[in-house]
Amino acid sequence: MKKGNMLIAQSGGPSMVINQSLVGAVLAARENKAVGKIYGALHGIQGILDEKFIDLKKESRSTLEAVANTPASALGSVRRKPTPEDCQAIFKVLKKLEIRYFFYIGGNDSAETVHIINEAAQKAAYGIRCFHIPKTIDNDLRENDHTPGYGSAARFVACAIKGDDLDNRALGGVKIDIIMGRNAGFLTAAAALARNEEDDGPHLIYLPERPFTIEGFVKDVQAAMKKYGRCVIAVSEGIADKDGTPILAKYTKEVDSHGNVQLSGTGALGDLLAGIVKEKAGIKRVRADTFGYLQRSFPGIASSSDAMEARLVGVAAVQAAVCDDILSGSIAIKRKATKRYAVDFEVVPLRNVAKETRHVPDEFINKAGNNVTQAFIDYARPLVGALPKCERFAQLKK
Amino acid sequence: MKKGNMLIAQSGGPSMVINQSLVGAVLAARENKAVGKIYGALHGIQGILDEKFIDLKKESRSTLEAVANTPASALGSVRRKPTPEDCQAIFKVLKKLEIRYFFYIGGNDSAETVHIINEAAQKAAYGIRCFHIPKTIDNDLRENDHTPGYGSAARFVACAIKGDDLDNRALGGVKIDIIMGRNAGFLTAAAALARNEEDDGPHLIYLPERPFTIEGFVKDVQAAMKKYGRCVIAVSEGIADKDGTPILAKYTKEVDSHGNVQLSGTGALGDLLAGIVKEKAGIKRVRADTFGYLQRSFPGIASSSDAMEARLVGVAAVQAAVCDDILSGSIAIKRKATKRYAVDFEVVPLRNVAKETRHVPDEFINKAGNNVTQAFIDYARPLVGALPKCERFAQLKK
Repeated sequence: MKKGNMLIAQSGGPSMVINQSLVGAVLAARENKAVGKIYGALHGIQGILDEKFIDLKKESRSTLEAVANTPASALGSVRRKPTPEDCQAIFKVLKKLEIRYFFYIGGNDSAETVHIINEAAQKAAYGIRCFHIPKTIDNDLRENDHTPGYGSAARFVACAIKGDDLDNRALGGVKIDIIMGRNAGFLTAAAALARNEEDDGPHLIYLPERPFTIEGFVKDVQAAMKKYGRCVIAVSEGIADKDGTPILAKYTKEVDSHGNVQLSGTGALGDLLAGIVKEKAGIKRVRADTFGYLQRSFPGIASSSDAMEARLVGVAAVQAAVCDDILSGSIAIKRKATKRYAVDFEVVPLRNVAKETRHVPDEFINKAGNNVTQAFIDYARPLVGALPKCERFAQLKK
Repeated sequence: MKKGNMLIAQSGGPSMVINQSLVGAVLAARENKAVGKIYGALHGIQGILDEKFIDLKKESRSTLEAVANTPASALGSVRRKPTPEDCQAIFKVLKKLEIRYFFYIGGNDSAETVHIINEAAQKAAYGIRCFHIPKTIDNDLRENDHTPGYGSAARFVACAIKGDDLDNRALGGVKIDIIMGRNAGFLTAAAALARNEEDDGPHLIYLPERPFTIEGFVKDVQAAMKKYGRCVIAVSEGIADKDGTPILAKYTKEVDSHGNVQLSGTGALGDLLAGIVKEKAGIKRVRADTFGYLQRSFPGIASSSDAMEARLVGVAAVQAAVCDDILSGSIAIKRKATKRYAVDFEVVPLRNVAKETRHVPDEFINKAGNNVTQAFIDYARPLVGALPKCERFAQLKK
């Protein structure tokens, strides 16, 4: 085993457990003789380009453990896709620092970044081992049963909907909640975990995997109001029409360097849908909330299995990188075919994970396209864990 | 002590601990020989008018305890101010049910309702004891050091801002968070509890107690960006100009029966301010979230002192009502002048609490009107309790 230095960085949207992966990798590397120095680049590849690093061998064990339990990206993050010129500049820095192990924690855009750097490194015959460590609250990485960060964000969503459903039960009317998920509806689907009784909300769930029509939406809301006397609705921020045009697309302008439209950090979609329900369904009390960045950053409520798995993918990445026969890859979470929930970690090729999005499979969505199935609940429950117990009076149960 | 039946109901916006007050009152009444039947009216005075009740002696102790720990109003709520005709109809029902003890849990609008019913009852020489049990996340009841519901909502806000500040630290730019509080800024002020280090957000806090100007706001944001390289801002939904006109007022139409404009359940104010920062301060990455109904309904994170005090105001109301010398009133929380945080409960006249709003006192707001003082932190900290620990790398501390 040839000894070399290591560089690790975080990229894309933060999560509640991305620091678990960082700390898992750092602690595994600190214990491994193949790893020399451990550089933490600040704000992803931007920190490599700007040569802004911290020394991750210097931080105390107790600081590392406290950081692991802290939401968001402790090294800072970035949304930047490297150009060919960036790659050249990055190699220059990596060579200077004698980096042999490069780890990048993030989603599919980040996996693409690792893939680009790895391809360029091979072309330049620069001996570096490039690994992607998965992270995304969207749960949309291919090759993975689920991704670190999803379980905790899903837990936030399920708790929020549970409370919001109780609030709606008390005051009535229609409540629309907009949930993150640009292309994949996994996080929105997690709203269903809030239900205990048959008449609990969310009563309607709309994912980007099914075309959204205003007419169908209004009809659904009217039917739910008739049945339940109130209606709680979980809507993905990424809902789109049959041509794939996001419902909100015309209301926003900002686009990031990966070509993505800004959907989060605005209440526009919720207000748009609330206006439609008021006008077209003739319902007076209609409210909309957009859960926004709290879904990925709220402290103290992470799913414990998610936190543990996030830690372990970091460890697995270092273990794979120091193996003589694995030169690059992405760590993927595979669910075991056991009755009791359990997972394995595997190394998969970077190109299998890069860029492309995994969608909510058909068997998780109901026929009408306005709810999820029991198969989804069975899939998601162990990732999220038990929710706080909520109860109503026995005389008010249906 | 003359024996009589009891009626209890919940009104106004729910909170995380309003069911603690309900259960506190019910358990105290169940143990008291002066109380016969215990009616729970559904959806406040609406349930009295519609004669929709449940029997609160029938519910098991374990159900009551589970309900106490459940957010939102378990009996349902209403926003309705009784007309003189309503009062006549209410008396008719109360007489029929031989109600001697009437308890109404809610905020200042609810206290006003109790006051109106009590005045009308006295006029009609109908012997009933009317008590208001305080509840409001806004913390704006006069006579009270603080109100049940505030500590838990403030805890949600402080946690949310803490996570959001970490998120903003990772990705940069300006983040605007809109926080509930129509006329009083106590809940928005609680954002300050998120800070540990000097450069932690929120960097700016705007309350309805100080006139808001676009020019001052833009200047403040530019100064914060210069100082911190990023900016997290907590804004009350109720911010208004120097004439008292809410900044959002012209963007919304809905008004409830107490004459209040709808400020929550829409992302319009956040989007408005984000647009201004982008345009006038020339900052590219600007995001806005509106915390919305999650602030009052999120399960599993209630402040433990808030939950306990909410329970005890319910108990105190029943204890006061069965006394021969107290015929009506509102329970108020008074803070003891001890070094260690402690409170007393007192009965105060209904008219002292009804309708009027308590505002954030001057000594809690900084001179520039864009932050809170240490005096506010000292006031609010014991109500909210310790927050989840968040940490950053030692090398990244300023």
